[in-house]
This record gives sequence, C-alpha cells and structure tokens, in this order.
Amino acid sequence: MNVLVGRKPREFDPPHSPRSVGWTRPLRVRLADESNPLPLDCGRFFAPVDVEYEVYGTLNEERDNAILILHALSGDAHVAGWDAAADEYGRPWRKTQPGWWDSMVGPGKAFDTRKYCVICSNVLGSCYGTTGPSSTDPATGRPYGLRFPVVTVHDWVRLQERLITHLGIERLLGVAGGSLGGQQALEWTLAHPGRVRCAIILASAARLSDQGLAFNAVARHAITTDPNFRGGDYYGGPTPDRGLAVARMLGHITYLSEESMRQKFGRRFRNGSGPGFQFGPEFEVEGYLEHQGNAFVQRFDANSYLYISRAMDYYDVSVWGDGDLDRACARAESRFLLISFSSDWLYPPRQMRELAMALCRNRKPVTYIELPSTYGHDAFLLEVDKLQELIPAFLEGSLGA
Amino acid sequence: MNVLVGRKPREFDPPHSPRSVGWTRPLRVRLADESNPLPLDCGRFFAPVDVEYEVYGTLNEERDNAILILHALSGDAHVAGWDAAADEYGRPWRKTQPGWWDSMVGPGKAFDTRKYCVICSNVLGSCYGTTGPSSTDPATGRPYGLRFPVVTVHDWVRLQERLITHLGIERLLGVAGGSLGGQQALEWTLAHPGRVRCAIILASAARLSDQGLAFNAVARHAITTDPNFRGGDYYGGPTPDRGLAVARMLGHITYLSEESMRQKFGRRFRNGSGPGFQFGPEFEVEGYLEHQGNAFVQRFDANSYLYISRAMDYYDVSVWGDGDLDRACARAESRFLLISFSSDWLYPPRQMRELAMALCRNRKPVTYIELPSTYGHDAFLLEVDKLQELIPAFLEGSLGA
Repeated sequence: MNVLVGRKPREFDPPHSPRSVGWTRPLRVRLADESNPLPLDCGRFFAPVDVEYEVYGTLNEERDNAILILHALSGDAHVAGWDAAADEYGRPWRKTQPGWWDSMVGPGKAFDTRKYCVICSNVLGSCYGTTGPSSTDPATGRPYGLRFPVVTVHDWVRLQERLITHLGIERLLGVAGGSLGGQQALEWTLAHPGRVRCAIILASAARLSDQGLAFNAVARHAITTDPNFRGGDYYGGPTPDRGLAVARMLGHITYLSEESMRQKFGRRFRNGSGPGFQFGPEFEVEGYLEHQGNAFVQRFDANSYLYISRAMDYYDVSVWGDGDLDRACARAESRFLLISFSSDWLYPPRQMRELAMALCRNRKPVTYIELPSTYGHDAFLLEVDKLQELIPAFLEGSLGA
Repeated sequence: MNVLVGRKPREFDPPHSPRSVGWTRPLRVRLADESNPLPLDCGRFFAPVDVEYEVYGTLNEERDNAILILHALSGDAHVAGWDAAADEYGRPWRKTQPGWWDSMVGPGKAFDTRKYCVICSNVLGSCYGTTGPSSTDPATGRPYGLRFPVVTVHDWVRLQERLITHLGIERLLGVAGGSLGGQQALEWTLAHPGRVRCAIILASAARLSDQGLAFNAVARHAITTDPNFRGGDYYGGPTPDRGLAVARMLGHITYLSEESMRQKFGRRFRNGSGPGFQFGPEFEVEGYLEHQGNAFVQRFDANSYLYISRAMDYYDVSVWGDGDLDRACARAESRFLLISFSSDWLYPPRQMRELAMALCRNRKPVTYIELPSTYGHDAFLLEVDKLQELIPAFLEGSLGA
C-alpha cells in the first residue's frame, strides 16, 4: 500500500532510494499489566503500559547487533523511512516527511541497517502510541490527564529495559540519542551497565542548566495558564493550543543558535520592504516561529509536553553518586562517544566536557568531541556528514568490546 | 509628606542618605496638540501628547550641564530617589523601591546630581504618565488600545527633543541609557547631532539580533493570544495577565546569563529536598520567574509591552545610512562611551564592537569597553562600581568638548 500516492516527499531520500529503510510500521506491546506493573520513581506501580516501537534491520543470530535509539522531547519511535500506517494511526503529517533521524538510520548511513538492528520506542507519557496522559485510564474510562503519574528518564529506561528483554536481547551493542535522548542513553549506561556495550550521546549533558529549567518553566506556564487547559482535562473539547504554540516557539529559539538565526533570517521583513507598523508577524523570524507553533499543535498533546519536559528538568545523572558526578560515573561499563556542538546553548559543550572529564577520571573509555557548528542544538539532527565520519567507526570499534 | 511611614526601604540608600536624591515628584507637560501634532514614522500626525518626566539636580546658568537619561522597555521617568507621589499616581510598588537607576544617579554617584542636571522622560506608548495605548482617545472617549499608532525609537527621540527645547536647553551635555535606552541615546547622536555633546551607551547595539526579535515575537504572541486580550480592548475588564506574565518571565531569562542563573539558583529545589512529582514551581528558578511574572502584571500594561517591544524590533540605526552602518555613523558629532558586558547575550559584545568599529572608521571619538561580568544583560543595572569608574571621568572629559 502506497499511502503517498499523489504526494511528493519533501526532503531526504525518497522511499525507493537504496539508502532509505523504505516503508515502516509501528509495533505495539504491553509491557506492564496489573500482575506486573511498572515501578516508578514517584512511588506508584503503574499499569497497564503499552509501548509503541519500531525496528529497522535484522537482529543477528548472536543477538548482539542491536542499537537502541532514544528520542528527544517531541520525537517518536518512527526514526527512519516512511510511515505505512500514517493514516491508520491518524498521523497525517507523517506522509510528508520521513522519520526524525532518517538522515542517520538506513542502509549505508551512520547507523547502518545492513549491519545493525536499530530499535526505537516511544517514551512513557508521550502521545505517539506509548501510554501517556491522553490514554484512557481503565479505572475511569476517561483520559488520564494530570492523573497520569509524573515520570522520569529513569522510568523510561526501566520500561525500555523491559522492551529489550521482551525482544530477547541480553546486551545491546549500543544506545544512542541526542538532547533528552542522549540523557536516556547516559542513564542506560548507569542503570544497566552490564547490558550496553557502547553509548553515543549527542548535544546532551548530565543535567539541564538553570537556564534550561527556566525555558521549560515558561513553556509549561504558557500551557497550564491557557484557559482551555482546564487542569489537563481538555480531551474532547477545545485544546490549549495557544499555550502549546508558545511553548513550541520558545523551544525553537533554544534549538537554533544566534548565528544560525542570523544566517537564516537576517532581520529580513516578510514583505521584502520595511515596517508595516502593526503587530502581526512582520519579520521572517516571526513568521517562522508562528509556523512552527501552529504546526506543532496539530501533532502534539499539551499534557505530554508537560510530562516530558518535567522529566527533562528532573534528570540529573549524579543521583547515582548521591549528587557526585564522579562517583556516579564509576558505575559505567560502556564505551562512550560524547559529541557536543560549539553553538549549542541548550546543552552547551561546557556541560558535555564536565561529563567527559568525570568519565575520564574514572578510567572509562570515552571519546569526547566538540564539533564546530553554527546550527545550535539542532546540530545533532543536521550535522550528518560529520556524524557519519565518527559514528560508524565508533560502533565497529565497539563490536568486540 | 512621608509616604513611606511604616515601610522599610529594601535596598540602596535610604531617603535620608546624603547620596540619595531624596523625594522626587513626576512632572507633566503637553508637547503636542492639534495645532502642533507630533509627526510619526508611521505617517500619522499625532496629538495630544503629554509627557511625564523627572528632573534631578539643577540646570546651571549656561544651561550646558543637562544629561538626558533614557529608560529601557519596562522603565519610567522615575530614575532615582523615592517617589513622593506614588499614592497619588496609583503606583504603590514605588513605595518599596527607589528609581530604577538609583544606584547611578545622585550626589556623588556616577551621574552626580551636584554637578549635572539629570532629566528622564517616559516614552510615548508607555503606561507611566506619557500618552500611550491606555490613555483616553479624545475622539472616542475610550482608551486607544491598538488604535494607538505604532511608534519607533526615532519617534521617541523626536518627542524628547521637544521636551529639551521646552526646558530651554539648546545642547545636552549627554545622553545615556542601557539596552533600549542605549538605542535612544544612539539615535539622539544621529537624529540631532548638534544637540548632544556625548553619549553613554550600555548593553545595547545598532539593532536587535534575530534571536532578540524571536523572543519579542513569542512574548507578544503570548499576550495577543490571551483570550482576555480582546484585540487590545481589555480596559475596564479582565486584563491579559497570563500572556503578559509569560512575556515577562521570558524577558527575565534574557536579562540574566546562564552563569548568573547557575550561581543564583544552582538547580536547587524550593522545598530543599527533591522532586515533588508535580507541575507547580519546584525549582527555585521556577519560583523566581513566576514571582517576576506576577509582580509585573501589577504594574505594567500589556498593550504598552506590545508597542515598546515593537519599537525595539524596528530599531536599526543603519537606516541613517540607507542600510549602511558606516555611512550612518558619519552623521555623529558626539563623543561616545560604549560599554558592553561579557555575558550579555541579548545585546552581545560582538554587536557593540561592530558599532564601535563603525564609529572608529568614521574618525569619531569613541571609547569602547567590554566589561567582564557574569550578570548578563542586567549588568548595566548592577555593575555599579565599574561604571562609577568610567562614567564620571568620561563626562568630565566631555564638558569642554
């Protein structure tokens, strides 16, 4: 079935390209039920939990070529290729763009699906197939809303570990992700040190800065003060799109760098001339942000934004060392590839260096590279050529480790 | 009359201190009426215009010791001392804190009121006494709202020039301001080069960056999509406080630096322990921002926020050179003291350096200093000791110029 008939893919390899993974379909599995609920950091034992995930490439007989990719705030399990189930799942935007890391996952790409079995699952609390605040609470028959438990990165990894076990994988070749995905990869190496051979952590850090906390706080404030939010019980009625759009616009400012914005927009007026003396979007950068905000509310749930950004806030890997990062890193048994980007100010190089040094002081094998880039935080999605130079070699070097 | 009986000033010199300007009262003057309207960049001829201003120190007989101080986005004419008319004007917050640059203006301070006559007026479009969107439109008997004309930095300076003329001052000793105030000071030197001997420009630039435009766009978006905004006609009813609070919270992120936030908050939880697994403000930085947002809506008008931030967007001094900064700077006849702060990322040193170099290439007398500071953009309000070293000497050097 070709759901894309009559539509033109906009970017990346088209579905028929030999370097695309082609058509993919999401998979679902129940990983926690009443008899085996998922213990959460908040103290609750939670069930049921269904997980949506995708698999690219083939698990070998030794079951030692699996790489778990972790997605960031607004991501999903659909990493690469074209979604054959976009209509079925009610996700029309997936018909016009491939998976979020399509440039990195596929035959001959950085995560080469001819060699490796790539897995990605949607996180708990999201709105893309894994149980989240928009799921139906079996106790009430209504969506959870804010009655959904507040989840953490550690909870996500605990659930991912159940998935890996379910798939019959004892030890992952690697875990990899950027931003909040990188924090999940890092958490894997400390929570399950014996189950992961290497970790590829991009544009991330041991914890979010206060400035990062501040951006998340304003984003959530915009959502929760939207009159349509109604304490999170907005399902079936008007949704808090105004607040969610503000949150997303704000997010996009932190994903770009000052320089990439200058290169991209250069204070240009949309009408090409000059001031229109009004408050609608006049500068190109204003139009860009409004577009991003409006597109996002079509595809994301405001409650999920609250839950996932809160997990991002709480994450601090040093809890494994009772607040001491060096002590925490002593637990690791993986090889590490840490990559930061010079113009990333959401997870600045300084923070990645801190992590690299803590691992180094613990005699852990760590490669830390600060890549020059003007793309800001988004560089982990865009600096494909540079990542292609580093990641395949690192993965091969980890095969025998 | 001591309006502060029973109240304790919180910071700075108390009213009785020899270094305070003591009690001040705002002054008002009508500077445009039907017979002499103010021409605006948008093409309208606008009247009536009343201006609120304050004066500190004494104009000498030669009338050559006047310094015009220009305020930033949320500022007012009340630069220093304690407001003796706080109750009369319905501005209760002024009873607990002195003027916004009290640390810099007074006897023996950087702008020494024993020597100089310091003047500051509230900008057109604001909500602190000068005509703005909350003023009554004589044509309708109702507040202007968005029927108020969109104003520019150039319009402000044109109005300030009328004030200076009204006060009988032919030539100012200096113009001085930080941030958007610095841009007004810069505009003075090019719009009225013969009327200003020196300019002190802090934490400012020839134009706002795209990143700065983006922050203003999100702030305005939050305001205009607040259901209480009602196209700007909210006076007399519920006000768009939710949107304005978001705008202010966002602003505060840009006023601090990543480092000053880390020093100030250090990811500390407000309850002192750890995650509470909820969405209310848990981290100290969240509590700080919410407090700032809530305090601001008590004292500022949302429409004024739109107008003043739009003026900040539009400002680009290079229009004096048809888009060429070097050509624009050729008009200047003043001495310049330009000061940027190393951690200011709203108006970063790079931008001030650009301006300094353009002035330099034009053989203009310019002193450019990048001060090391962790305070971010707020440094122009906080680095008092360093400014005290620079400003008095520069002013003395300008006396004979």
